This record gives sequence, C-alpha cells and structure tokens, in this order.
Amino acid sequence: MQAEIITIGDELLIGQVIDTNSAFIAKQLNKIGISVYQITSIQDHKSHILKALKEAENNADIIILTGGLGPTKDDITKKTIAEYFNDTLVLNTAVLQNIETIWKQYVRQKLLQVNKDQALIPSKATVLMNKLGTAPGMWLEKQEKTIISLPGVPFEMKAIITNHVIPKLKDKYKCPYILHKTLLIHGLGESTLAARIEPWEDALPKHIKLAYLPSLNKMRLRLSTKGFEKEKIETEIQEQISKVLPLIKKEFYGYEDEDGNEEAFLGNQLTKIGKTLAIAESCTGGKLTEMFTANPGASKYLKGGVVTYSTQSKIDILNISENLINTHSVVSQQVAEAMAQNALKLYKSDYAIATTGNAGPTKGDSNAQVGTVFIAIATKNTVYTKEFNFGNHRTRVINKAVNQALQMLQEEILKN
Amino acid sequence: MQAEIITIGDELLIGQVIDTNSAFIAKQLNKIGISVYQITSIQDHKSHILKALKEAENNADIIILTGGLGPTKDDITKKTIAEYFNDTLVLNTAVLQNIETIWKQYVRQKLLQVNKDQALIPSKATVLMNKLGTAPGMWLEKQEKTIISLPGVPFEMKAIITNHVIPKLKDKYKCPYILHKTLLIHGLGESTLAARIEPWEDALPKHIKLAYLPSLNKMRLRLSTKGFEKEKIETEIQEQISKVLPLIKKEFYGYEDEDGNEEAFLGNQLTKIGKTLAIAESCTGGKLTEMFTANPGASKYLKGGVVTYSTQSKIDILNISENLINTHSVVSQQVAEAMAQNALKLYKSDYAIATTGNAGPTKGDSNAQVGTVFIAIATKNTVYTKEFNFGNHRTRVINKAVNQALQMLQEEILKN
Repeated sequence: MQAEIITIGDELLIGQVIDTNSAFIAKQLNKIGISVYQITSIQDHKSHILKALKEAENNADIIILTGGLGPTKDDITKKTIAEYFNDTLVLNTAVLQNIETIWKQYVRQKLLQVNKDQALIPSKATVLMNKLGTAPGMWLEKQEKTIISLPGVPFEMKAIITNHVIPKLKDKYKCPYILHKTLLIHGLGESTLAARIEPWEDALPKHIKLAYLPSLNKMRLRLSTKGFEKEKIETEIQEQISKVLPLIKKEFYGYEDEDGNEEAFLGNQLTKIGKTLAIAESCTGGKLTEMFTANPGASKYLKGGVVTYSTQSKIDILNISENLINTHSVVSQQVAEAMAQNALKLYKSDYAIATTGNAGPTKGDSNAQVGTVFIAIATKNTVYTKEFNFGNHRTRVINKAVNQALQMLQEEILKN
Repeated sequence: MQAEIITIGDELLIGQVIDTNSAFIAKQLNKIGISVYQITSIQDHKSHILKALKEAENNADIIILTGGLGPTKDDITKKTIAEYFNDTLVLNTAVLQNIETIWKQYVRQKLLQVNKDQALIPSKATVLMNKLGTAPGMWLEKQEKTIISLPGVPFEMKAIITNHVIPKLKDKYKCPYILHKTLLIHGLGESTLAARIEPWEDALPKHIKLAYLPSLNKMRLRLSTKGFEKEKIETEIQEQISKVLPLIKKEFYGYEDEDGNEEAFLGNQLTKIGKTLAIAESCTGGKLTEMFTANPGASKYLKGGVVTYSTQSKIDILNISENLINTHSVVSQQVAEAMAQNALKLYKSDYAIATTGNAGPTKGDSNAQVGTVFIAIATKNTVYTKEFNFGNHRTRVINKAVNQALQMLQEEILKN
C-alpha cells in the first residue's frame, strides 16, 4: 500500500514555512503499514494542484493533501478538488454547526460569510470533522484510490489524522506491519561504522533495509522491514540487533524512542527510578531545559534550570566564586563542575548537568577557542567533566553540546 | 526562471527527519529572483531518482538535489546522476585532497576506501568544493538546464549554496528581483482581518500577491512581487503598505525580518538602544531564553534566564515569598510580577519577562485551568501582567505564550 503526501502553499515554496506536516503524516502512516512513496510541496495554483493530483494517482493508492482550506481568497484547494471530481459544493449543516460552536467559544466576533462558506463541501466527500478549527477534513474515493484533504494548521491536521484518517484507513486497507528500530551510537563516523559492521551488513536478508543517519556527534543506525506477521518480524529484527551489538559494544548507548525523542526517553527513565534533574546552562542557552520541558510530564523529574549566560550571573545566581572564575576562566572544567554542583544544591535535585563554553561566532567572556565546551554531570556522590571542541558553527556547537549532555546523562543513569 | 528542489532520503519518507533543507534553499533562490516551482522528497531508489529528474526537467530550468551522497551503500545519488547523464565516474584529485585534509584535521582515523571513493565524480560535472565535509557538490548542464547535486547534511549544503551555487546562478541567469514583505499583526483572526482589508486587497495590482499566514495568536500578512526594476518594486510595495496600515493601526506591531526571526529582530533593537534583558520562565520551560540565545550576539543584551519549573525553585532561586504563592497560587498575576521583578534584580537587567502558567496536559502545582498563562514585563519603573488562556494543547500553549511574550516585550521597547 503506497501513499503520497501533497502539501499546498506558496509559503512552503518561498521557504517562509518549513513543512513539518509531512513528517508527522508519514510517521503515522508507517505505523499502520502504509509506505509513503513521495512528498510533494506545490503552489496555491489550480493547475498545479490538478497536475499533482493526477501524477500522484499514478504512483499511490492514497493521496493526502494538506493546506489551502482557509477562509481567504488565496485558499483554493476545496474548489479545485470539486473540479477534479466533477463535483459541486453543497452546504454541510454539521460543519456549519461546528463552525458556529468554535466561533462562540473562542472567537466571540461576528461570524462572517467567508467563515460560513467553510461549510461548503464537495457533495461526494465524507466530512472528517475538525473540532479544533473551521476547515473540515474531506475523504473522497475514486475507483480504488482514496484522496484526503486536510487543513494545513499542524495541530488541526494532527487531530484529524489521529482521530479519523488512521482508523478509516485501517478499516479500508489490509496493511502489512512496518517495523523500524533505531540504534544510537556515539564516537564512530559513518564510514568507520560501516567498515566495522560490513560483514554483518552484507549478510542482512534483502527485506531488511539498513540506513546510516549521521547527526552531530552521534550516528543513528536504522533497521527497517515489513510483513504481515508482526511477531516473526520483531524476532527477526531482534536477532539481527543481537548480532550487530557485539561489534559496537563500546559505542552503542541506547535506542531511539518511537518518536525519535531522546530526552523524552531519558525523562521517562528518571521518572521510573524516582530521580530528579536540574540544569545549569551557559553556552547551550536554555536549549537543554527547553527540550525536556517540551514533553508532558517533565514536572515529575525536572526541578528547573538556570541560564547563566553572563559571567556576572554565574556569580550572582549560581554562587560561583569570582576567584574560581578568575583563576580558571569562565570556560573551564572547574567552573563547569561548580555550576553542576551548585545547581544540584540550589534545586535540591539528584542529578545536575552544566554546560559552559563558547558557541561563537566571536569570543565572549573568556579566551577559550570558539567551539570549546565543558559539560559536567553532578550527583550527590560525584562530579565529572568532559571537554570538547565542536567546531566554529554556532548552531552546531549548541546542538552537539546538547546531544553530548544527553549522552553523558544517559550513561550516568545507566550506572545505577 | 523556475527551480525545482528534490530531496532524497528514505528518512524523509518515513517521517524520521523533517526536511529543513528545502526551505533554506528556496529562500536563497528567492533572494536572487528564482522561484521554486515544486519541492519533491523521494526515496533512495535509482528508478525514483531518474523519474523525478525527468519530471523536474519538464517543470524547471534549475534542479537542485540534496542527499544520498554519503560513503555508505545506501547512498546512490552520484551513480544515478552519472547514469542520467550517460557519464562515468572519474577521480577528482582536488576533492581527494580536501577529503584527506578533513580526515587529518577532524577524524584522525584511517582513511578508508569508501571515503576515497567520495572523490569519484561524473566526468561532466563541475565540482562545488565542500570544505566542511567529504561529499562534494556537483554542477551539471544539459542543454539550457542546470542540475545541481548537494550533500544532505544541512550545514555542508548551506555553505555550498551560499559560496558556490548562488554566485554561479547569478552569473548564468539574468534573474528578476523578488520582494517579500511580511507584516506582523496580533488580535485579529484570518477572516476578520480579510474582511477589514477587503477593499484594499481587491484593489491590489494583479502582480502583487497577498498571503495570510495565521500562526498561534498572530497573523502574518505577506505581500510578494517580482520584476527587473528593484527600486520601482520597492516603492510600489511600500505604497501598498502605507495604504493598508491605517486599516490595522491598532493591531500591527512590526515586520518580520528577512529570516522570519522575531527574537533576532528584538535582540538587535535591544542592542541598538543598549538595554539588557533577563527571563524567568515557568510554563515556557526555557524556550524563550533558548530562542534568544540561538542567535549570535545574544550575549550583548541577554543577561540570562532562570527556569523555575517547580514551585520550590521559585522560592529558592527567584526568592518568591512562600506566603505570596500560598495566598495567590503559583499561577497568578502576583507571582508572575514577582518573578519578573526579582529576575530584573537578580540579573541586574533593564527589562525582564516572566511566564507562569499551566501548559498541561494535567494540572500542576496550582488549580489553574490548563492553558492559563500569566506573562509579566518588568522594567526599573514598571511591572504589568497579561492573563491568557491558550487552550489545552501543550506545545501550542508554550508556543503561544512565547509569541505573546515577544509581542509584549516589543510593545514595551517601542514605548521608548
């Protein structure tokens, strides 16, 4: 079973908006055994939408469109779909009622004709009700093909995918089970890893696909396969993992969770063992703390974080002694460890992470080379630091430091 | 002049990686007057790459591919391009030298044959040297079409686009000038805004395109046009803006900078007026601080931030009185204002922002409804708060609170 995703909107093609919808949809389709053949981003033009629909029909059984369903004049997806199906728009009273409810609850302004017009739906479409917005999803069929049109606003689209599209697709198609398993590996480059595991890779059965995903000081190695017997597939992947693990014993440090979210995985581990975390950030500027708090349930293990970006704030807020800073410099092992230890005390946590470094592009309050980062981990019993040079690209320095800090925390937790 | 972007990689089609490359490339092309017709994400399959190339040739003059140039067996773009051009791969000594240099400087492991093989290039290609990685960019021509293949690693791709692709394209094609100008507007929904400005919109010349971009409690209104006379175009857009501004006088609060980055714009304003900022975050969990520090030069105006996620940490670190919290609850105007004022004092800054609220999905240390957020702004002379309910979707609550905090800060700065 193959799907194609078409995202509609000039904002995508001028680079003003990054298309995050496709990745979400692709992930959900994969979970029920539907592969995505292609993702196509196109303009808000009738002829372009018609052309994309026609081409997608040649490649895929299921076509999912997002975008172009708003109330304004630049949104033309609905009219175009009606034309594609040789159909007319008719008023759907359930949708109109939903629009009126949302308007009353959230907007509290006069309901305009353009909003009412969002209840006009191609007569051949089944409505996928959008409880979170005024543009409904639509489900249409053409011989054995299914064409689904969804609003482009990510949280509305996500709710319709989860509540309507996935259950309906599962109903309609008998789908194979798709399994991806991703190993996290640090300390090995792509080609060194490939050379190390070459005999294993060459012996992999043809139906198991392997992918190398390098990303900022870590490698992700993804095994994928699909079939109709879930248990058999899971056993087979597990067997292959058992064979490769001895080859990367020192460098393997965990699996990626289903959503590729390392910090959520770590947060769950902390919650399970009933331990808490505090974070003191300098060069990573709050990113570590933000990554943890982006996940629900963070309050169960995260006491908080402090971003002591200026040297003075390290003294004032984290009680780092001025003398220590003057002796060793603000970017040093000693300051990193003091930051971690004092964060542990301040927040009364079980673990603390601290980062201090120079992300560039220019030198800050220290003479440390751009890219130098010290990362410290403190617990009640221990404190230690690793020193890195992450190069001279600001965003990469920050992201590599964050990755490395997560790895160090994971290793520390695994010690228990 | 039309371009098409093709991003290659199974990781895109299973939703493991979000394609951020296309938006960057599209933005750079737009700046030199090249429109992007379509963005297509495809699999690491020879037949799919060949098909996409052929289709793209029908739509576009310039085709830019990213991805699939790594040293491992799953990377097949280079071989496929050679086949498409009826070409063979030959060793490029300059590329080999670059690989050896990078290896010596960063990798310090044995150079493997697969790495050396990255210096094999189609004989018809001009190399676009990749100083940051081992996979070079390639520039090929076929009649009047240009086909460019780039590595998928974003920072390598970006450097090649900036240093090689854009200058070469400017050389080869006489391009029109493309201008986008985006107005930031709050307090108006999409349809209300559309109704308000309808006469103006209907009178817009055909060659000026208008787009409504709703995003979490703010609207972006984008005017776009292109032509060969830069000054004429700029004057024309400016004239249209002067006509629309009186219609949205109360709700307009600024322009988006070229990269769509509101916090960088704010940071630059603070730097210009020589003022500093501190941030105290609860429900936004460090995201505000992280957004500012992601931009170079943040240390010029950002003293730092504190994430007091737990109630106890508000007491211990921000010196909020336990009595105040017990009297008014931790999610209250009083606590938000105390957080802002104490952050201002702690960090010795000119401005402070504070957020406290409940992002959900469950209630935390207060009885406040999920979605309730108080945002406070403090200066040496004043402190004030706004109360919001941002609904019950965690990520959206956080993002709306961040947007709103940026707006409040921008309004406060504009008072001077």
